[in-house]
Amino acid sequence: MTQTSKAGPMFNKIALIGVGLIGGSIALAARRGGLARQIVAATRSAETAATANRLKLVDHCGTDLAEACKDADLVIVCTPVGACGEAAKMIAPSLKPGCILSDVGSVKQAVIRDMQPHVPPGVHFIPTHPVAGTENSGPEAGFAELFDGRWCILTPLPDSDPAAVDKLEAFWKALGSLVERLNPAHHDRILAITSHLPHLIAYTIVGTADDLGGHLNSEVLRFAAGGFRDFTRIAASDPTMWRDIFLNNREAVLEVLQRFQEDLFYLQRAIRWGEGDKLFDLFTRTREIRRALIHLHQA
Amino acid sequence: MTQTSKAGPMFNKIALIGVGLIGGSIALAARRGGLARQIVAATRSAETAATANRLKLVDHCGTDLAEACKDADLVIVCTPVGACGEAAKMIAPSLKPGCILSDVGSVKQAVIRDMQPHVPPGVHFIPTHPVAGTENSGPEAGFAELFDGRWCILTPLPDSDPAAVDKLEAFWKALGSLVERLNPAHHDRILAITSHLPHLIAYTIVGTADDLGGHLNSEVLRFAAGGFRDFTRIAASDPTMWRDIFLNNREAVLEVLQRFQEDLFYLQRAIRWGEGDKLFDLFTRTREIRRALIHLHQA
Repeated sequence: MTQTSKAGPMFNKIALIGVGLIGGSIALAARRGGLARQIVAATRSAETAATANRLKLVDHCGTDLAEACKDADLVIVCTPVGACGEAAKMIAPSLKPGCILSDVGSVKQAVIRDMQPHVPPGVHFIPTHPVAGTENSGPEAGFAELFDGRWCILTPLPDSDPAAVDKLEAFWKALGSLVERLNPAHHDRILAITSHLPHLIAYTIVGTADDLGGHLNSEVLRFAAGGFRDFTRIAASDPTMWRDIFLNNREAVLEVLQRFQEDLFYLQRAIRWGEGDKLFDLFTRTREIRRALIHLHQA
Repeated sequence: MTQTSKAGPMFNKIALIGVGLIGGSIALAARRGGLARQIVAATRSAETAATANRLKLVDHCGTDLAEACKDADLVIVCTPVGACGEAAKMIAPSLKPGCILSDVGSVKQAVIRDMQPHVPPGVHFIPTHPVAGTENSGPEAGFAELFDGRWCILTPLPDSDPAAVDKLEAFWKALGSLVERLNPAHHDRILAITSHLPHLIAYTIVGTADDLGGHLNSEVLRFAAGGFRDFTRIAASDPTMWRDIFLNNREAVLEVLQRFQEDLFYLQRAIRWGEGDKLFDLFTRTREIRRALIHLHQA
Protein backbone atom coordinates (compact mmCIF):
# COMPACT_ATOMS: atom_id res chain seq x y z
CA MET A 1 0.00 0.00 0.00
CA THR A 2 2.90 2.35 0.68
CA GLN A 3 3.62 4.78 -2.14
CA THR A 4 7.07 5.69 -0.90
CA SER A 5 9.63 4.90 -3.57
CA LYS A 6 13.25 5.86 -4.14
CA ALA A 7 11.83 9.12 -5.43
CA GLY A 8 10.18 9.68 -2.01
CA PRO A 9 6.52 10.01 -1.13
CA MET A 10 3.96 11.37 -3.57
CA PHE A 11 3.78 14.78 -1.88
CA ASN A 12 6.18 16.77 0.24
CA LYS A 13 3.55 18.55 2.27
CA ILE A 14 -0.19 18.08 2.41
CA ALA A 15 -2.34 20.75 4.06
CA LEU A 16 -5.89 19.98 5.10
CA ILE A 17 -8.23 22.90 5.70
CA GLY A 18 -10.78 21.48 8.11
CA VAL A 19 -10.14 18.30 10.03
CA GLY A 20 -13.47 16.60 10.68
CA LEU A 21 -14.57 13.14 9.60
CA ILE A 22 -13.24 13.55 6.05
CA GLY A 23 -10.14 15.65 6.74
CA GLY A 24 -9.16 13.42 9.64
CA SER A 25 -9.66 10.28 7.57
CA ILE A 26 -7.60 11.67 4.68
CA ALA A 27 -4.78 12.41 7.13
CA LEU A 28 -4.87 8.90 8.57
CA ALA A 29 -5.16 7.19 5.18
CA ALA A 30 -2.37 9.33 3.71
CA ARG A 31 -0.12 8.44 6.61
CA ARG A 32 -1.04 4.78 6.28
CA GLY A 33 0.02 4.95 2.64
CA GLY A 34 3.17 6.99 3.27
CA LEU A 35 1.91 9.55 0.78
CA ALA A 36 3.53 12.68 2.20
CA ARG A 37 6.60 13.76 4.17
CA GLN A 38 4.48 16.15 6.16
CA ILE A 39 0.73 16.43 6.78
CA VAL A 40 -0.62 19.53 8.46
CA ALA A 41 -4.09 20.84 9.04
CA ALA A 42 -5.79 24.05 10.05
CA THR A 43 -9.25 24.81 11.33
CA ARG A 44 -10.81 27.98 12.60
CA SER A 45 -11.95 26.23 15.76
CA ALA A 46 -9.23 26.18 18.42
CA GLU A 47 -11.07 23.35 20.13
CA THR A 48 -11.12 21.20 17.00
CA ALA A 49 -7.44 21.95 16.42
CA ALA A 50 -6.61 20.88 19.96
CA THR A 51 -8.51 17.63 19.48
CA ALA A 52 -6.74 16.94 16.18
CA ASN A 53 -3.38 17.51 17.86
CA ARG A 54 -4.29 15.35 20.83
CA LEU A 55 -5.34 12.53 18.50
CA LYS A 56 -2.16 13.09 16.44
CA LEU A 57 -4.23 13.04 13.26
CA VAL A 58 -1.62 15.24 11.57
CA ASP A 59 1.89 16.45 12.26
CA HIS A 60 0.45 19.76 13.38
CA CYS A 61 -2.95 21.38 13.39
CA GLY A 62 -3.24 25.13 13.82
CA THR A 63 -5.91 27.78 13.43
CA ASP A 64 -4.23 29.88 10.75
CA LEU A 65 -5.51 28.54 7.45
CA ALA A 66 -3.08 30.50 5.26
CA GLU A 67 -0.08 29.58 7.37
CA ALA A 68 -0.86 25.87 7.04
CA CYS A 69 -0.82 26.07 3.24
CA LYS A 70 2.65 27.56 2.90
CA ASP A 71 4.88 25.32 0.78
CA ALA A 72 2.17 22.68 0.54
CA ASP A 73 2.03 20.85 -2.78
CA LEU A 74 -1.44 19.49 -2.05
CA VAL A 75 -4.12 21.50 -0.26
CA ILE A 76 -7.52 19.95 0.34
CA VAL A 77 -10.37 22.06 1.66
CA CYS A 78 -12.37 19.72 3.91
CA THR A 79 -14.99 22.14 5.23
CA PRO A 80 -18.74 22.01 4.70
CA VAL A 81 -19.65 23.10 1.16
CA GLY A 82 -20.89 26.49 2.32
CA ALA A 83 -17.50 27.41 3.77
CA CYS A 84 -15.34 26.44 0.78
CA GLY A 85 -15.39 29.85 -0.88
CA GLU A 86 -14.34 31.70 2.24
CA ALA A 87 -11.62 29.13 2.91
CA ALA A 88 -10.27 29.49 -0.63
CA LYS A 89 -10.20 33.26 -0.23
CA MET A 90 -8.25 33.02 3.03
CA ILE A 91 -5.64 30.58 1.81
CA ALA A 92 -5.19 31.93 -1.74
CA PRO A 93 -2.28 34.27 -0.91
CA SER A 94 -0.16 31.44 0.49
CA LEU A 95 -0.76 28.81 -2.21
CA LYS A 96 2.48 28.14 -4.01
CA PRO A 97 2.59 27.90 -7.83
CA GLY A 98 2.22 24.30 -9.01
CA CYS A 99 0.29 23.31 -5.91
CA ILE A 100 -2.83 21.17 -6.32
CA LEU A 101 -5.92 22.65 -4.64
CA SER A 102 -8.87 20.37 -4.09
CA ASP A 103 -11.92 19.90 -1.90
CA VAL A 104 -14.21 17.11 -0.72
CA GLY A 105 -17.64 18.72 -1.18
CA SER A 106 -20.75 16.69 -1.99
CA VAL A 107 -21.81 19.39 -4.46
CA LYS A 108 -19.46 20.39 -7.25
CA GLN A 109 -20.97 23.25 -9.27
CA ALA A 110 -21.46 25.48 -6.23
CA VAL A 111 -18.00 24.71 -4.90
CA ILE A 112 -16.49 25.62 -8.26
CA ARG A 113 -18.55 28.81 -8.33
CA ASP A 114 -17.33 29.76 -4.86
CA MET A 115 -13.69 28.64 -4.95
CA GLN A 116 -12.52 29.20 -8.51
CA PRO A 117 -12.52 33.03 -8.40
CA HIS A 118 -9.91 32.88 -5.62
CA VAL A 119 -7.54 30.39 -7.24
CA PRO A 120 -4.21 32.09 -8.06
CA PRO A 121 -2.62 31.53 -11.47
CA GLY A 122 -0.39 28.47 -11.54
CA VAL A 123 -2.38 26.64 -8.88
CA HIS A 124 -4.18 23.49 -10.10
CA PHE A 125 -7.75 23.54 -8.82
CA ILE A 126 -9.35 20.09 -9.14
CA PRO A 127 -12.73 19.68 -7.41
CA THR A 128 -13.24 16.26 -5.88
CA HIS A 129 -15.92 14.33 -4.02
CA PRO A 130 -15.10 11.19 -2.07
CA VAL A 131 -18.45 9.38 -1.83
CA ALA A 132 -17.81 8.10 1.66
CA GLY A 133 -18.82 9.04 5.15
CA THR A 134 -20.61 7.99 8.27
CA GLU A 135 -23.26 9.63 10.40
CA ASN A 136 -20.53 10.76 12.78
CA SER A 137 -18.61 13.99 12.44
CA GLY A 138 -15.67 15.82 13.93
CA PRO A 139 -11.99 14.86 14.23
CA GLU A 140 -12.72 11.89 16.52
CA ALA A 141 -14.83 10.34 13.75
CA GLY A 142 -11.96 9.96 11.27
CA PHE A 143 -10.45 6.59 10.44
CA ALA A 144 -7.89 5.41 7.89
CA GLU A 145 -10.17 2.87 6.18
CA LEU A 146 -13.01 5.28 5.35
CA PHE A 147 -12.21 5.44 1.63
CA ASP A 148 -11.26 1.81 1.05
CA GLY A 149 -13.23 0.49 -1.89
CA ARG A 150 -15.46 3.58 -2.04
CA TRP A 151 -15.86 5.84 -5.04
CA CYS A 152 -14.09 9.15 -5.31
CA ILE A 153 -15.35 11.40 -8.10
CA LEU A 154 -13.02 13.93 -9.68
CA THR A 155 -14.68 16.75 -11.62
CA PRO A 156 -11.76 18.41 -13.39
CA LEU A 157 -12.33 21.74 -15.10
CA PRO A 158 -11.90 22.15 -18.85
CA ASP A 159 -8.52 23.79 -18.34
CA SER A 160 -7.29 21.49 -15.57
CA ASP A 161 -3.72 20.34 -16.09
CA PRO A 162 -3.85 16.62 -17.06
CA ALA A 163 -0.71 15.74 -15.10
CA ALA A 164 -2.12 17.33 -11.95
CA VAL A 165 -5.43 15.50 -12.40
CA ASP A 166 -3.57 12.21 -12.86
CA LYS A 167 -1.56 12.87 -9.73
CA LEU A 168 -4.65 13.63 -7.65
CA GLU A 169 -6.30 10.51 -9.04
CA ALA A 170 -3.27 8.45 -8.00
CA PHE A 171 -3.46 10.02 -4.54
CA TRP A 172 -7.10 9.01 -4.06
CA LYS A 173 -6.40 5.52 -5.31
CA ALA A 174 -3.58 5.33 -2.79
CA LEU A 175 -6.06 6.39 -0.10
CA GLY A 176 -8.04 3.28 -1.04
CA SER A 177 -10.69 4.76 -3.35
CA LEU A 178 -11.99 3.76 -6.74
CA VAL A 179 -11.78 6.88 -8.90
CA GLU A 180 -14.16 8.14 -11.58
CA ARG A 181 -14.18 11.43 -13.47
CA LEU A 182 -17.43 13.24 -14.17
CA ASN A 183 -18.70 16.56 -15.42
CA PRO A 184 -19.64 18.73 -12.39
CA ALA A 185 -23.28 19.24 -13.44
CA HIS A 186 -23.69 15.54 -14.09
CA HIS A 187 -22.17 14.77 -10.70
CA ASP A 188 -24.61 17.08 -8.96
CA ARG A 189 -27.60 15.49 -10.66
CA ILE A 190 -26.55 11.92 -9.87
CA LEU A 191 -25.77 12.73 -6.27
CA ALA A 192 -29.07 14.56 -5.87
CA ILE A 193 -30.73 11.22 -6.62
CA THR A 194 -28.45 8.78 -4.86
CA SER A 195 -27.55 10.77 -1.78
CA HIS A 196 -29.18 14.17 -1.30
CA LEU A 197 -32.81 13.12 -1.79
CA PRO A 198 -32.46 10.03 0.45
CA HIS A 199 -30.97 12.18 3.19
CA LEU A 200 -33.72 14.78 2.89
CA ILE A 201 -36.37 12.06 3.10
CA ALA A 202 -34.71 10.46 6.10
CA TYR A 203 -34.50 13.79 7.90
CA THR A 204 -38.17 14.43 7.13
CA ILE A 205 -39.49 11.07 8.23
CA VAL A 206 -37.60 11.07 11.50
CA GLY A 207 -38.93 14.55 12.22
CA THR A 208 -42.46 13.51 11.29
CA ALA A 209 -42.27 10.46 13.52
CA ASP A 210 -41.01 12.60 16.36
CA ASP A 211 -43.85 15.08 15.91
CA LEU A 212 -46.43 12.32 15.72
CA GLY A 213 -44.87 10.94 18.85
CA GLY A 214 -46.23 12.85 21.78
CA HIS A 215 -47.10 10.10 24.19
CA LEU A 216 -46.39 7.67 21.36
CA ASN A 217 -42.85 8.87 21.27
CA SER A 218 -41.13 6.40 23.50
CA GLU A 219 -43.02 3.60 21.78
CA VAL A 220 -42.05 4.89 18.37
CA LEU A 221 -38.43 4.69 19.43
CA ARG A 222 -38.90 1.43 21.25
CA PHE A 223 -40.44 -0.47 18.39
CA ALA A 224 -38.27 1.21 15.79
CA ALA A 225 -38.20 -1.54 13.21
CA GLY A 226 -35.67 -2.07 10.46
CA GLY A 227 -36.98 0.72 8.30
CA PHE A 228 -37.14 3.51 10.81
CA ARG A 229 -33.90 2.60 12.52
CA ASP A 230 -32.00 2.89 9.24
CA PHE A 231 -33.60 6.27 8.65
CA THR A 232 -32.55 7.59 12.05
CA ARG A 233 -28.96 6.67 11.28
CA ILE A 234 -29.04 8.62 8.03
CA ALA A 235 -30.85 11.49 9.75
CA ALA A 236 -28.06 11.71 12.32
CA SER A 237 -25.65 13.05 9.69
CA ASP A 238 -23.92 16.37 10.29
CA PRO A 239 -26.48 19.23 10.24
CA THR A 240 -24.13 21.93 8.91
CA MET A 241 -22.79 19.76 6.13
CA TRP A 242 -26.27 18.78 4.98
CA ARG A 243 -27.80 22.23 5.28
CA ASP A 244 -25.04 23.44 2.95
CA ILE A 245 -25.58 20.60 0.51
CA PHE A 246 -29.29 21.33 0.12
CA LEU A 247 -28.78 25.06 -0.21
CA ASN A 248 -25.99 24.56 -2.75
CA ASN A 249 -27.50 21.85 -4.92
CA ARG A 250 -30.91 23.45 -4.87
CA GLU A 251 -32.03 23.04 -8.47
CA ALA A 252 -31.08 19.39 -8.78
CA VAL A 253 -32.57 18.54 -5.37
CA LEU A 254 -35.83 20.36 -6.10
CA GLU A 255 -36.11 18.61 -9.44
CA VAL A 256 -35.74 15.08 -8.06
CA LEU A 257 -37.90 16.00 -5.08
CA GLN A 258 -40.70 16.99 -7.44
CA ARG A 259 -40.46 13.61 -9.17
CA PHE A 260 -40.42 11.84 -5.82
CA GLN A 261 -43.54 13.69 -4.69
CA GLU A 262 -45.40 12.72 -7.84
CA ASP A 263 -44.48 9.09 -7.35
CA LEU A 264 -45.45 9.16 -3.70
CA PHE A 265 -48.86 10.66 -4.50
CA TYR A 266 -49.35 7.89 -7.05
CA LEU A 267 -48.80 5.30 -4.32
CA GLN A 268 -50.89 7.22 -1.83
CA ARG A 269 -53.77 7.17 -4.28
CA ALA A 270 -53.26 3.46 -4.96
CA ILE A 271 -53.47 2.76 -1.22
CA ARG A 272 -56.57 4.90 -0.86
CA TRP A 273 -58.34 3.15 -3.73
CA GLY A 274 -57.10 -0.31 -2.87
CA GLU A 275 -55.16 -0.74 -6.12
CA GLY A 276 -52.90 -3.52 -4.94
CA ASP A 277 -51.52 -4.31 -8.39
CA LYS A 278 -49.91 -0.88 -8.66
CA LEU A 279 -48.18 -1.41 -5.33
CA PHE A 280 -47.14 -4.94 -6.18
CA ASP A 281 -45.69 -3.92 -9.55
CA LEU A 282 -43.51 -1.20 -8.04
CA PHE A 283 -42.38 -3.38 -5.15
CA THR A 284 -41.38 -6.11 -7.57
CA ARG A 285 -39.40 -3.65 -9.67
CA THR A 286 -37.56 -2.15 -6.70
CA ARG A 287 -36.63 -5.62 -5.50
CA GLU A 288 -34.98 -6.22 -8.87
CA ILE A 289 -33.09 -2.94 -8.57
CA ARG A 290 -31.66 -4.11 -5.28
CA ARG A 291 -30.54 -7.32 -6.91
CA ALA A 292 -28.92 -5.35 -9.72
CA LEU A 293 -27.11 -3.23 -7.16
CA ILE A 294 -25.83 -6.24 -5.27
CA HIS A 295 -24.77 -7.87 -8.53
CA LEU A 296 -22.99 -4.71 -9.63
CA HIS A 297 -21.04 -4.37 -6.43
CA GLN A 298 -20.09 -8.01 -6.42
CA ALA A 299 -19.02 -7.86 -10.05
CA MET B 1 -32.46 -21.82 26.40
CA THR B 2 -34.22 -25.17 26.26
CA GLN B 3 -37.74 -25.13 27.70
CA THR B 4 -38.00 -28.88 28.04
CA SER B 5 -38.66 -29.81 31.65
CA LYS B 6 -39.84 -32.91 33.41
CA ALA B 7 -43.28 -31.86 32.25
CA GLY B 8 -42.06 -32.06 28.64
CA PRO B 9 -41.85 -29.31 26.05
CA MET B 10 -44.18 -26.32 26.08
CA PHE B 11 -46.33 -27.67 23.23
CA ASN B 12 -47.06 -31.11 21.92
CA LYS B 13 -47.58 -30.08 18.34
CA ILE B 14 -47.03 -26.76 16.62
CA ALA B 15 -48.51 -26.19 13.17
CA LEU B 16 -47.27 -23.34 11.00
CA ILE B 17 -49.50 -22.20 8.15
CA GLY B 18 -47.04 -20.70 5.70
CA VAL B 19 -43.35 -21.36 5.93
CA GLY B 20 -41.50 -18.35 4.55
CA LEU B 21 -38.99 -16.15 6.36
CA ILE B 22 -41.10 -15.88 9.51
CA GLY B 23 -42.63 -19.36 9.57
CA GLY B 24 -39.29 -20.97 8.81
CA SER B 25 -37.56 -18.94 11.51
CA ILE B 26 -40.22 -19.82 14.09
CA ALA B 27 -39.70 -23.49 13.29
CA LEU B 28 -35.95 -23.25 13.66
CA ALA B 29 -36.10 -21.15 16.84
CA ALA B 30 -38.73 -23.45 18.39
CA ARG B 31 -36.58 -26.46 17.65
CA ARG B 32 -33.53 -24.68 19.06
CA GLY B 33 -35.48 -24.09 22.27
CA GLY B 34 -36.99 -27.57 22.41
CA LEU B 35 -40.43 -25.97 22.58
CA ALA B 36 -42.49 -28.72 20.93
CA ARG B 37 -42.51 -32.48 20.45
CA GLN B 38 -43.59 -32.02 16.85
CA ILE B 39 -43.47 -29.07 14.47
CA VAL B 40 -45.33 -29.31 11.18
CA ALA B 41 -46.14 -26.80 8.49
CA ALA B 42 -48.40 -26.47 5.51
CA THR B 43 -48.39 -24.13 2.56
CA ARG B 44 -50.54 -24.03 -0.55
CA SER B 45 -47.43 -23.99 -2.74
CA ALA B 46 -46.13 -27.51 -3.43
CA GLU B 47 -42.79 -26.00 -4.40
CA THR B 48 -42.44 -24.15 -1.10
CA ALA B 49 -43.46 -27.28 0.79
CA ALA B 50 -40.80 -29.28 -1.06
CA THR B 51 -38.18 -26.67 -0.19
CA ALA B 52 -39.21 -26.66 3.47
CA ASN B 53 -38.93 -30.46 3.57
CA ARG B 54 -35.58 -30.45 1.80
CA LEU B 55 -34.25 -27.90 4.30
CA LYS B 56 -35.79 -29.93 7.15
CA LEU B 57 -37.26 -26.73 8.61
CA VAL B 58 -40.05 -28.78 10.21
CA ASP B 59 -40.82 -32.43 10.85
CA HIS B 60 -43.15 -32.39 7.87
CA CYS B 61 -44.51 -29.78 5.49
CA GLY B 62 -47.55 -30.56 3.40
CA THR B 63 -50.02 -28.64 1.26
CA ASP B 64 -53.20 -29.43 3.19
CA LEU B 65 -53.63 -26.60 5.68
CA ALA B 66 -56.44 -28.23 7.65
CA GLU B 67 -54.66 -31.56 7.88
CA ALA B 68 -51.56 -29.91 9.39
CA CYS B 69 -53.59 -28.36 12.21
CA LYS B 70 -55.11 -31.57 13.51
CA ASP B 71 -54.24 -32.13 17.17
CA ALA B 72 -52.01 -29.06 17.19
CA ASP B 73 -52.02 -27.11 20.44
CA LEU B 74 -50.42 -24.08 18.80
CA VAL B 75 -51.26 -22.95 15.27
CA ILE B 76 -49.55 -19.88 13.84
CA VAL B 77 -50.71 -18.43 10.54
CA CYS B 78 -47.53 -17.10 8.89
CA THR B 79 -48.98 -15.93 5.56
CA PRO B 80 -49.06 -12.39 4.22
CA VAL B 81 -51.71 -10.32 6.00
CA GLY B 82 -54.10 -10.50 3.04
CA ALA B 83 -54.24 -14.30 3.19
CA CYS B 84 -54.88 -14.68 6.93
CA GLY B 85 -58.66 -14.68 6.69
CA GLU B 86 -58.77 -17.35 4.00
CA ALA B 87 -56.25 -19.45 5.92
CA ALA B 88 -58.32 -19.19 9.11
CA LYS B 89 -61.40 -20.25 7.21
CA MET B 90 -59.64 -23.31 5.78
CA ILE B 91 -58.15 -24.52 9.04
CA ALA B 92 -61.06 -23.70 11.36
CA PRO B 93 -62.74 -27.13 11.12
CA SER B 94 -59.62 -28.95 12.30
CA LEU B 95 -58.64 -26.70 15.20
CA LYS B 96 -58.99 -28.60 18.44
CA PRO B 97 -60.65 -27.01 21.48
CA GLY B 98 -58.10 -25.39 23.77
CA CYS B 99 -55.68 -24.78 20.91
CA ILE B 100 -53.96 -21.41 20.65
CA LEU B 101 -54.38 -19.76 17.23
CA SER B 102 -52.06 -16.89 16.39
CA ASP B 103 -50.53 -15.06 13.43
CA VAL B 104 -47.48 -12.92 12.66
CA GLY B 105 -49.05 -10.10 10.65
CA SER B 106 -47.65 -6.58 10.64
CA VAL B 107 -51.19 -5.19 10.83
CA LYS B 108 -53.46 -6.27 13.65
CA GLN B 109 -56.91 -4.73 13.23
CA ALA B 110 -57.37 -6.11 9.71
CA VAL B 111 -56.11 -9.54 10.71
CA ILE B 112 -58.54 -9.62 13.60
CA ARG B 113 -61.35 -8.49 11.29
CA ASP B 114 -60.50 -11.27 8.81
CA MET B 115 -59.64 -14.15 11.13
CA GLN B 116 -61.88 -13.77 14.15
CA PRO B 117 -65.15 -14.69 12.41
CA HIS B 118 -63.70 -18.11 11.61
CA VAL B 119 -62.35 -18.95 15.06
CA PRO B 120 -64.31 -21.87 16.55
CA PRO B 121 -65.52 -21.70 20.17
CA GLY B 122 -62.92 -22.95 22.62
CA VAL B 123 -59.98 -21.93 20.42
CA HIS B 124 -57.80 -19.12 21.86
CA PHE B 125 -57.16 -16.56 19.15
CA ILE B 126 -54.28 -14.25 20.12
CA PRO B 127 -53.02 -11.93 17.34
CA THR B 128 -49.27 -11.38 17.43
CA HIS B 129 -46.65 -9.40 15.55
CA PRO B 130 -42.98 -10.26 15.81
CA VAL B 131 -41.23 -7.03 14.79
CA ALA B 132 -38.40 -8.79 13.00
CA GLY B 133 -37.52 -9.60 9.45
CA THR B 134 -35.03 -9.15 6.68
CA GLU B 135 -35.39 -8.10 3.06
CA ASN B 136 -35.26 -11.78 2.09
CA SER B 137 -38.29 -14.02 1.86
CA GLY B 138 -39.19 -17.66 1.36
CA PRO B 139 -38.27 -20.77 3.34
CA GLU B 140 -34.56 -20.45 2.52
CA ALA B 141 -34.50 -17.08 4.28
CA GLY B 142 -35.44 -18.45 7.72
CA PHE B 143 -32.92 -18.66 10.55
CA ALA B 144 -33.18 -19.53 14.22
CA GLU B 145 -31.77 -16.23 15.53
CA LEU B 146 -34.24 -13.94 13.74
CA PHE B 147 -36.20 -13.08 16.89
CA ASP B 148 -33.34 -12.86 19.38
CA GLY B 149 -33.58 -9.57 21.23
CA ARG B 150 -36.32 -8.26 18.93
CA TRP B 151 -39.75 -7.12 20.03
CA CYS B 152 -42.78 -9.29 19.65
CA ILE B 153 -46.08 -7.51 20.18
CA LEU B 154 -49.11 -9.43 21.42
CA THR B 155 -52.49 -7.78 20.87
CA PRO B 156 -54.85 -9.94 22.92
CA LEU B 157 -58.59 -9.45 22.48
CA PRO B 158 -60.78 -8.32 25.38
CA ASP B 159 -62.03 -11.86 25.90
CA SER B 160 -58.69 -13.62 25.38
CA ASP B 161 -57.99 -16.26 28.01
CA PRO B 162 -55.24 -14.87 30.29
CA ALA B 163 -53.56 -18.27 30.70
CA ALA B 164 -53.36 -18.74 26.92
CA VAL B 165 -51.93 -15.24 26.48
CA ASP B 166 -49.33 -15.95 29.16
CA LYS B 167 -48.40 -19.20 27.45
CA LEU B 168 -47.99 -17.54 24.05
CA GLU B 169 -45.92 -14.81 25.66
CA ALA B 170 -43.67 -17.44 27.23
CA PHE B 171 -43.36 -19.12 23.82
CA TRP B 172 -42.19 -15.91 22.14
CA LYS B 173 -39.75 -15.20 24.95
CA ALA B 174 -38.40 -18.71 24.48
CA LEU B 175 -37.97 -17.93 20.77
CA GLY B 176 -35.67 -15.11 21.87
CA SER B 177 -38.04 -12.13 21.72
CA LEU B 178 -38.81 -9.33 24.09
CA VAL B 179 -42.59 -9.28 24.48
CA GLU B 180 -44.96 -6.34 24.83
CA ARG B 181 -48.75 -6.23 24.81
CA LEU B 182 -50.62 -3.50 22.99
CA ASN B 183 -54.09 -2.58 21.91
CA PRO B 184 -54.51 -3.54 18.20
CA ALA B 185 -55.40 -0.02 17.02
CA HIS B 186 -52.49 1.45 18.91
CA HIS B 187 -50.18 -1.18 17.41
CA ASP B 188 -51.31 -0.30 13.90
CA ARG B 189 -50.71 3.39 14.44
CA ILE B 190 -47.22 2.94 15.90
CA LEU B 191 -46.19 0.53 13.18
CA ALA B 192 -47.54 2.85 10.49
CA ILE B 193 -44.95 5.37 11.70
CA THR B 194 -42.00 3.16 12.51
CA SER B 195 -42.27 0.61 9.75
CA HIS B 196 -44.98 1.07 7.12
CA LEU B 197 -44.24 4.68 6.19
CA PRO B 198 -40.45 4.09 6.00
CA HIS B 199 -41.03 1.15 3.70
CA LEU B 200 -43.41 3.09 1.48
CA ILE B 201 -40.89 5.92 1.21
CA ALA B 202 -38.06 3.53 0.43
CA TYR B 203 -40.09 1.84 -2.29
CA THR B 204 -40.96 5.22 -3.75
CA ILE B 205 -37.47 6.66 -3.77
CA VAL B 206 -35.92 3.60 -5.36
CA GLY B 207 -38.60 3.67 -8.06
CA THR B 208 -38.09 7.40 -8.61
CA ALA B 209 -34.34 6.94 -8.90
CA ASP B 210 -34.84 4.13 -11.38
CA ASP B 211 -37.20 6.25 -13.49
CA LEU B 212 -34.84 9.21 -13.41
CA GLY B 213 -32.14 6.81 -14.43
CA GLY B 214 -32.37 6.32 -18.14
CA HIS B 215 -28.76 6.62 -19.21
CA LEU B 216 -28.01 7.75 -15.67
CA ASN B 217 -29.19 4.43 -14.37
CA SER B 218 -25.97 2.53 -14.16
CA GLU B 219 -24.33 5.57 -12.59
CA VAL B 220 -27.13 5.89 -10.07
CA LEU B 221 -26.49 2.32 -9.03
CA ARG B 222 -22.74 2.69 -9.24
CA PHE B 223 -22.45 5.70 -7.01
CA ALA B 224 -25.21 4.54 -4.70
CA ALA B 225 -24.06 6.19 -1.51
CA GLY B 226 -24.98 5.30 2.02
CA GLY B 227 -28.44 6.77 1.83
CA PHE B 228 -29.65 5.17 -1.36
CA ARG B 229 -28.07 1.82 -0.69
CA ASP B 230 -29.95 1.51 2.62
CA PHE B 231 -33.17 2.40 0.83
CA THR B 232 -32.69 -0.27 -1.82
CA ARG B 233 -32.31 -2.87 0.91
CA ILE B 234 -35.59 -1.84 2.51
CA ALA B 235 -37.25 -1.64 -0.92
CA ALA B 236 -36.22 -5.24 -1.62
CA SER B 237 -38.71 -6.51 0.97
CA ASP B 238 -41.35 -9.01 -0.09
CA PRO B 239 -43.84 -7.39 -2.52
CA THR B 240 -46.87 -9.47 -1.55
CA MET B 241 -46.35 -8.97 2.16
CA TRP B 242 -46.00 -5.23 1.77
CA ARG B 243 -48.85 -4.77 -0.69
CA ASP B 244 -51.07 -6.46 1.90
CA ILE B 245 -49.77 -4.31 4.72
CA PHE B 246 -50.55 -1.05 2.92
CA LEU B 247 -53.98 -2.21 1.79
CA ASN B 248 -54.82 -3.43 5.28
CA ASN B 249 -53.47 -0.56 7.37
CA ARG B 250 -54.81 2.03 4.99
CA GLU B 251 -56.18 4.64 7.37
CA ALA B 252 -53.15 4.76 9.64
CA VAL B 253 -50.73 4.80 6.70
CA LEU B 254 -52.63 7.56 4.88
CA GLU B 255 -52.72 9.62 8.04
CA VAL B 256 -48.97 9.50 8.70
CA LEU B 257 -48.28 9.91 4.99
CA GLN B 258 -50.25 13.14 5.00
CA ARG B 259 -48.14 14.43 7.88
CA PHE B 260 -44.97 13.35 6.14
CA GLN B 261 -45.99 15.17 2.95
CA GLU B 262 -46.64 18.37 4.85
CA ASP B 263 -43.25 18.17 6.50
CA LEU B 264 -41.51 17.43 3.22
CA PHE B 265 -43.16 20.42 1.53
CA TYR B 266 -41.96 22.57 4.43
CA LEU B 267 -38.38 21.48 3.75
CA GLN B 268 -38.82 21.81 0.00
CA ARG B 269 -39.92 25.39 0.48
CA ALA B 270 -37.01 26.06 2.84
CA ILE B 271 -34.60 24.81 0.20
CA ARG B 272 -36.23 26.88 -2.52
CA TRP B 273 -36.07 30.05 -0.44
CA GLY B 274 -32.64 29.37 1.02
CA GLU B 275 -33.89 29.18 4.61
CA GLY B 276 -30.90 27.31 6.00
CA ASP B 277 -31.91 27.78 9.64
CA LYS B 278 -35.06 25.72 9.15
CA LEU B 279 -33.01 22.88 7.69
CA PHE B 280 -30.36 23.15 10.37
CA ASP B 281 -32.90 23.09 13.19
CA LEU B 282 -34.58 19.95 11.93
CA PHE B 283 -31.29 18.19 11.22
CA THR B 284 -30.10 18.97 14.73
CA ARG B 285 -33.30 17.60 16.21
CA THR B 286 -33.18 14.37 14.20
CA ARG B 287 -29.59 13.81 15.25
CA GLU B 288 -30.73 13.96 18.86
CA ILE B 289 -33.49 11.44 18.14
CA ARG B 290 -30.89 9.02 16.82
CA ARG B 291 -28.90 9.48 20.02
CA ALA B 292 -32.01 8.83 22.08
CA LEU B 293 -32.65 5.68 20.07
CA ILE B 294 -29.11 4.42 20.57
CA HIS B 295 -29.30 5.26 24.26
CA LEU B 296 -32.63 3.47 24.60
CA HIS B 297 -31.38 0.29 22.98
CA GLN B 298 -28.21 0.32 25.04
CA ALA B 299 -30.17 0.91 28.21
